[in-house]
Amino acid sequence: MSDLLPVVEAQNRIRAAFAPVAAHWLDLADALGRVLAEDVSAALDLPPFTNSSMDGYAVRAADLAHAPARLRVVADIPAGVAPERTIEPGEAARIMTGAMLPPGADAVIPVEDTQAEGDSVLAQKQVQPGDYLRPRGSDLQAGEVVLRAGHRLRAQDLGLLAALGVARVRAYHKPLVALLSSGDELVAPGEPLGPGKIYDANSITLASLVAESCAELLALGVARDDPAQVRERLETAVSQGADLILTSAGVSVGAFDYVRAILEQEGRLTFWRVNVRPGKPLAFGAYHGVPVIGLPGNPVSAFVGFLIFVTPAIHRLAGLPERAPVTGSAVLEEALESDGRESYLRGSVITVDGQTSARQAKNQSSGNIYALSQANALLIVPSGVKSLPVGSAVNFIRIGNEGE
Amino acid sequence: MSDLLPVVEAQNRIRAAFAPVAAHWLDLADALGRVLAEDVSAALDLPPFTNSSMDGYAVRAADLAHAPARLRVVADIPAGVAPERTIEPGEAARIMTGAMLPPGADAVIPVEDTQAEGDSVLAQKQVQPGDYLRPRGSDLQAGEVVLRAGHRLRAQDLGLLAALGVARVRAYHKPLVALLSSGDELVAPGEPLGPGKIYDANSITLASLVAESCAELLALGVARDDPAQVRERLETAVSQGADLILTSAGVSVGAFDYVRAILEQEGRLTFWRVNVRPGKPLAFGAYHGVPVIGLPGNPVSAFVGFLIFVTPAIHRLAGLPERAPVTGSAVLEEALESDGRESYLRGSVITVDGQTSARQAKNQSSGNIYALSQANALLIVPSGVKSLPVGSAVNFIRIGNEGE
Repeated sequence: MSDLLPVVEAQNRIRAAFAPVAAHWLDLADALGRVLAEDVSAALDLPPFTNSSMDGYAVRAADLAHAPARLRVVADIPAGVAPERTIEPGEAARIMTGAMLPPGADAVIPVEDTQAEGDSVLAQKQVQPGDYLRPRGSDLQAGEVVLRAGHRLRAQDLGLLAALGVARVRAYHKPLVALLSSGDELVAPGEPLGPGKIYDANSITLASLVAESCAELLALGVARDDPAQVRERLETAVSQGADLILTSAGVSVGAFDYVRAILEQEGRLTFWRVNVRPGKPLAFGAYHGVPVIGLPGNPVSAFVGFLIFVTPAIHRLAGLPERAPVTGSAVLEEALESDGRESYLRGSVITVDGQTSARQAKNQSSGNIYALSQANALLIVPSGVKSLPVGSAVNFIRIGNEGE
Repeated sequence: MSDLLPVVEAQNRIRAAFAPVAAHWLDLADALGRVLAEDVSAALDLPPFTNSSMDGYAVRAADLAHAPARLRVVADIPAGVAPERTIEPGEAARIMTGAMLPPGADAVIPVEDTQAEGDSVLAQKQVQPGDYLRPRGSDLQAGEVVLRAGHRLRAQDLGLLAALGVARVRAYHKPLVALLSSGDELVAPGEPLGPGKIYDANSITLASLVAESCAELLALGVARDDPAQVRERLETAVSQGADLILTSAGVSVGAFDYVRAILEQEGRLTFWRVNVRPGKPLAFGAYHGVPVIGLPGNPVSAFVGFLIFVTPAIHRLAGLPERAPVTGSAVLEEALESDGRESYLRGSVITVDGQTSARQAKNQSSGNIYALSQANALLIVPSGVKSLPVGSAVNFIRIGNEGE
């Protein structure tokens, strides 16, 4: 197997061919899932002012040194209001959770430790200065870097940015990924299936994977085995500014020959035999300066190839840091056999009582998209390993729905 | 704590108030992430016809019983073509991977085990009937149920459906979730922050969580503390057909009073004290027949409340099966303390060499959205448990990006 390229080497060569796309300013409302192009620092403290963590009374702690003590209620401070009245000795202000501590006060006594009596309140316990307060800057101080360039923005990150008053962020554009399928044997779902023909499964699978990544899809459709059609679609990809052209070969080598011929004449195309199962044959090149990745036609090979070779390229384009696709590890419920190639076996993982276990699907044919659909994980047998015994740990890539 | 409702009981009561929304027919291209409303059965076998798993020659195995044997090459079968010529004794056909086995042939010999000699081929090895064939129906037989109602469609499921020729699926509509924030203290990011005011973080956080779920967002904006404004927005939710109204209280109880008053007059509103930390106060009711969930105003409480109370409601509306929000388990690197309430602590989980470990964030304040943004998981301390020792297993809900 000395002629087989290691997976990590193929990934490195692919990543080296890409650089992050340009950045632009984006409203926060459009930024979910987008990748920051620069660090963001806090422009203000969080909380921005010292406030009460309870509904109660703002007091001077010294007044309650000999509690119970009666205090005169001189103000009522709801959230959102700046209290102006200074709390003098012997005074208190009703205060709501989140409301600003008034000048003069240095603590809050919770409402359940008090008794209202007309214009005054009976404080039944002592408090220490600082009690039931959230001091300004206690969560975060202005100037701190809160999110780094290369971070993909989640709901809670947008919440943090909003809390800091940030309305726009500088983020990378979404890379544009052109997808071209080819092959005379491919029939669109819904059309009648002639003898010898198969339905085109890869177009929708790969388009969906692009849509789920941080990229935009440019669907080029299915090219017939006709050089003019193939060339026209590749031209569309270039003129539309695609950052990556992805091709799915169909199952027929013949079908792909047109793509290959055009790329060899007008671009560059290298075939690699990668030390991976499934998905050994992988094409990589460029057309008029746009990188091209050619995935195998078998549905499972195309799916695995996308996850391990196309995702790193898209991540690099999108400005995301390099990261292994592994999403977890599990204990094997049954042994795994492999042929020494780095293997991505369809399987299922399940977590019960704190223990995540895994088993492989019965049918590991690279053409079997049914087994892929029934799987919720790809179990990874590392390169050079021919068997993993029961009870050993196996890394996996999750391909299931959340919670499945 | 006998007056505190268990989390699971609150979840059950919430789920009981919802039923799946209506279903409709959807093109496969629009079906990613959508939930099937009925089972799908295979209308054809996969593969749909017996085909070659290799590039090679279709042969009659009996002809090679005394290999090496010379066979006359009588046809050339690319993928996508229906071979008509029957292979007679002493004959072979060149065949590509995925191409249909011709009549008469019962095996394929790979090209590397042959030598082409003009119009004939020298087969150098024996083959058994069935060798290098993918028999019709070997992956899947027509009539089998391949995907069940309630399944959320992933890339590979759409690939399977496409492979079966399915062009449209019957899926549930996306539930429409109306989001109303309220509170005079809330300022939109980008605007100047007056004294005592805070930036509105919950609107974008909750809107993003709705967008990431299988629901559609109806953004009602921020209502001032004005009954007319609150009523108008609730009316909008009803007239637009919202399936659920979500409110975020702001931090001020006063601000929420208008929502509460209107719901109590014209609908129904119950406050529950749930045995959970953070997020104890939870409001649940209805307005003109539309269920309403009121989340606490603290950003972390609102986030956790969404994951554990709103997500089950949206899943029920969307037709998804009931499912715990837990996504994995890890070994604790340090002890966790709790107060006996079911706790969702901000923390980080990391997988190294097959071992997933977890530790909590230093700052667990329910107002601290910075700590939430730095977390990649919520660590769950079950109800009634006051401490989990180092080395024990802890369930978690992942809130990080893929691979983080």
